[in-house]
Amino acid sequence: MTAAEPSVCALLTDFGDADNFVGVMKGVILRGAPSVKIVDLSHGVAPQDVEEGAFQLLTAYSYFPAGTVFVCVVDPGVGTGRSLLFVQTARHRFIGPDNGVLSWVLDRDPPKNVIRLDPKKVTNERVSRTFHGRDLMAPAAALILSGVAPSSLGPAINAWTKISFPPLKKSGAKWTAKILSADRFGNLITNIPNKDVETYKNSSKIWIETGTGRPAIRGISETYASGGDGRLMALAGSGGFIELAVRNGNARKKTGLKKGDTLSVLFRV
Amino acid sequence: MTAAEPSVCALLTDFGDADNFVGVMKGVILRGAPSVKIVDLSHGVAPQDVEEGAFQLLTAYSYFPAGTVFVCVVDPGVGTGRSLLFVQTARHRFIGPDNGVLSWVLDRDPPKNVIRLDPKKVTNERVSRTFHGRDLMAPAAALILSGVAPSSLGPAINAWTKISFPPLKKSGAKWTAKILSADRFGNLITNIPNKDVETYKNSSKIWIETGTGRPAIRGISETYASGGDGRLMALAGSGGFIELAVRNGNARKKTGLKKGDTLSVLFRV
Amino acid sequence: MTAAEPSVCALLTDFGDADNFVGVMKGVILRGAPSVKIVDLSHGVAPQDVEEGAFQLLTAYSYFPAGTVFVCVVDPGVGTGRSLLFVQTARHRFIGPDNGVLSWVLDRDPPKNVIRLDPKKVTNERVSRTFHGRDLMAPAAALILSGVAPSSLGPAINAWTKISFPPLKKSGAKWTAKILSADRFGNLITNIPNKDVETYKNSSKIWIETGTGRPAIRGISETYASGGDGRLMALAGSGGFIELAVRNGNARKKTGLKKGDTLSVLFRV
Repeated sequence: MTAAEPSVCALLTDFGDADNFVGVMKGVILRGAPSVKIVDLSHGVAPQDVEEGAFQLLTAYSYFPAGTVFVCVVDPGVGTGRSLLFVQTARHRFIGPDNGVLSWVLDRDPPKNVIRLDPKKVTNERVSRTFHGRDLMAPAAALILSGVAPSSLGPAINAWTKISFPPLKKSGAKWTAKILSADRFGNLITNIPNKDVETYKNSSKIWIETGTGRPAIRGISETYASGGDGRLMALAGSGGFIELAVRNGNARKKTGLKKGDTLSVLFRV
Repeated sequence: MTAAEPSVCALLTDFGDADNFVGVMKGVILRGAPSVKIVDLSHGVAPQDVEEGAFQLLTAYSYFPAGTVFVCVVDPGVGTGRSLLFVQTARHRFIGPDNGVLSWVLDRDPPKNVIRLDPKKVTNERVSRTFHGRDLMAPAAALILSGVAPSSLGPAINAWTKISFPPLKKSGAKWTAKILSADRFGNLITNIPNKDVETYKNSSKIWIETGTGRPAIRGISETYASGGDGRLMALAGSGGFIELAVRNGNARKKTGLKKGDTLSVLFRV
Repeated sequence: MTAAEPSVCALLTDFGDADNFVGVMKGVILRGAPSVKIVDLSHGVAPQDVEEGAFQLLTAYSYFPAGTVFVCVVDPGVGTGRSLLFVQTARHRFIGPDNGVLSWVLDRDPPKNVIRLDPKKVTNERVSRTFHGRDLMAPAAALILSGVAPSSLGPAINAWTKISFPPLKKSGAKWTAKILSADRFGNLITNIPNKDVETYKNSSKIWIETGTGRPAIRGISETYASGGDGRLMALAGSGGFIELAVRNGNARKKTGLKKGDTLSVLFRV
C-alpha cells in the first residue's frame, strides 16, 4: 500500500443502530490506529444470530480491498471461555469469536494463519465481561492495522469452531432446500447456489414448491422486473444464492416463509 | 483539491441497514479509489420509492463539498433495459439509474454533461442482474473519483427520464398542496416552498386546512417550540418546504396524514 | 497530531436513519474541514430525549481519541433562545445545545473552557429555525477542527444547564434504583454504578426486587452466559452500570420494565 491507500477496517455486528456500541468500537480503533478507514459492513445481523453473521460476511468479504481487517462481533458467548481468533487468508484478515461466525468464509477461503488471541497480549486495560468488541476485538484490530505482527498476539492454532452451512440435499430429480434469510425488500435467500441451477435459467424444466397452499415457482427468472406484478419468482441472487422475490412486492410477506423453512426443487428429466 | 482534501463519495439508497448491501458497495468503491471519503447520505429511502430518493437528494446535495460524487441507488428497474447515468452539474457529480431519481436536482441545477454509462466500459467483471449498485454504480464512482474522464465511460446524451415534482396548484386565494413525506419526528413535509409563503410568517392571513375532522392551522410558526404542546402547526422546514409539526408530538400520528394526501392553503385577501 | 492522524468528529443525534439529516451535517462538516474523520457515535437516541443523549455520550466519550470533537444534536428547543455551547475538557471537545445533553459528561469531567457560541461568529449564511445541527453546530465543528480558536466563536461562560442524573437512593440495607434505558438486546440498564456493588459479585447477600409479580434477582452474575436460559439476572454492564439481562432472551420483554421504573436493591447484613 502507498500513503494514499489507508488500511480498511470493516465492522460486522449484531449491535443495530439504537445504541452507542458501534460508535465506541470506532473510537477505540481510531485511538489505536488513527489513519485507518472504518467501514460499516453491517450492524443489522439479528441479535446473537451467528449463522446470519457468517452469511453476511461470506457474501461480502471478497468485495473489499486486499488487506481489509474484518471485525465480526456476533458473540452470544461473550465473557465465557470461548476464544477470540485472528485469521489471515490470501487477501483478507478477520477478527472474531471462535463460535463459527468466521467459518463459512474459511470453508471457502482456507486460512494461511489462525491465531488464538491472548487477551493479556492485546490490552493492558481492564476487560469487561460483556463487551469484548470494545475491550479486545477493537484493540486487536488497531494493533494489527498498526503493523503489529499477529504472532505476537497469541499462539497459532490448527482447529477452530465450524458451523455447518445448511445443506442442500440433492436426491436425483428432487432437491430439498432451505430459506437462509430475508433481506430488506422481503426477498427470501435460499441455500441453492446460483451456479447449481445456472443451466435452468428461463427453463420450464425446474420448479420450486414452497409448501402447501403457497404458489409453486416455475423456472428461474432473470431480473426482479421480469416477473408479473405480485407473482412469486426465483432468480439468481447477488450474493450467489437463488432468491425468491415478488416484483414490486415482498416475498416474505406474500408467502409467510421464514428462515429455516423448507423448499422442494423439482426437475423434469 | 489539495492532498488534504480527499474526494467525497456520498451514498443514497433504499437499502436500509439490515443487510450488507451498503457495506459491499463501500468495499467496491474503496478497492477502486482507496483514498476517497465515503459518506452515507441516507439509506432510509422507502424501498423502491424513486420520488423519495429524488427528494432526499434534492434537499441535501447542495450542502456537500464541490466535486462530491453522489451514488443514488433507488432502482426498482435493476436488470432491465433502463440506463445508468453520470451527470456533472456546476459543482457536483451524480451516478444513478435513469428513472428520475436524479431529475429533481437537474430541474434545479441544469447539468453540464450527462453520460449514459456503458456497462462494458465500466467493468470487465461479471455483472449481476439484481445489484447494479455493487456491480456498475460503485465501480463507475471509483473510476470517476480516480480521475477517469466520464466521456470514456459512455456517450453524452441530451435527454433523460424526468419525474414531475408534485405540483402546488395555485388558484387565486386557494392553493392545493400535497404531503411529500414524513420524517422521523413525524413532521409532514409539504410541496409548498418556504419562499412562496415567506411573507405570511406569524400572519393570520394564511391558514391550512388538513381535511375533514382534522384541525386547521392558522399562520406559519417560526419554530417547533413556538406552538402549544400538542397543537398542529405549520413552519418553514429546513429542506426548503413548509412542514406540519406538533410541539413535543408527532404530526403524522396526530393527523393520520400520509404521503400524497391533499391540503388546502387559504389566504384572506 | 501528525499528518497521519486526522482529527475525529463524532456525531450523536436523535435523527435516526430514515432521513438525510445526518448525511447533510456530514456534508457541511467536510465542506469546512475536508480532512476530518467523521464517526457516527449514535443516531438512535429516542427523539428529543435529552437524558438518553446525555447517557449515550457519558458512556462513550472516554473511548475516543484525544481531541475528538463530539457534536451532540438532541435539541427539542431548536429555534428558541437556548444557547449553543462549545466545551473543552482535559482530552475532548463538545458542541451541543445548552439543554443538559452535555452535563453528565461535565459532572464527571469538569471543563477547562465553556464558550457560548455566537451564531453570527459561526456562520455568515442564513440559519434555519429548525435545523441548527446543519446550520450552526456542523459549521462550528468545522471551524474548531480547522484550528479556529474557540474564543473567537463566542464569550466564555461559567454556568450551563444541568440535568440531574437519576439518583440512586441508598437507605441502609435498601437502595432504590431506576431503569435508565434498554439496549438493542433488551438488556435494562440501571443507575446502579458497577463499582458500588463490586464486592457482591457472585454473592447471595444482594438481591434485586423488580416489582410485584416479577422475578427477584439474587446476586450479581459475571457474564450474560452465566445465567440459566430464560432466567433474569443482574450483571456489571459495559457502560459502568448494572444491567438486568436474560441469557438468550430479552429482559425488557420478559419483565415489561421500562425507562423510569423502580427497583429495590436489598442487602443481607
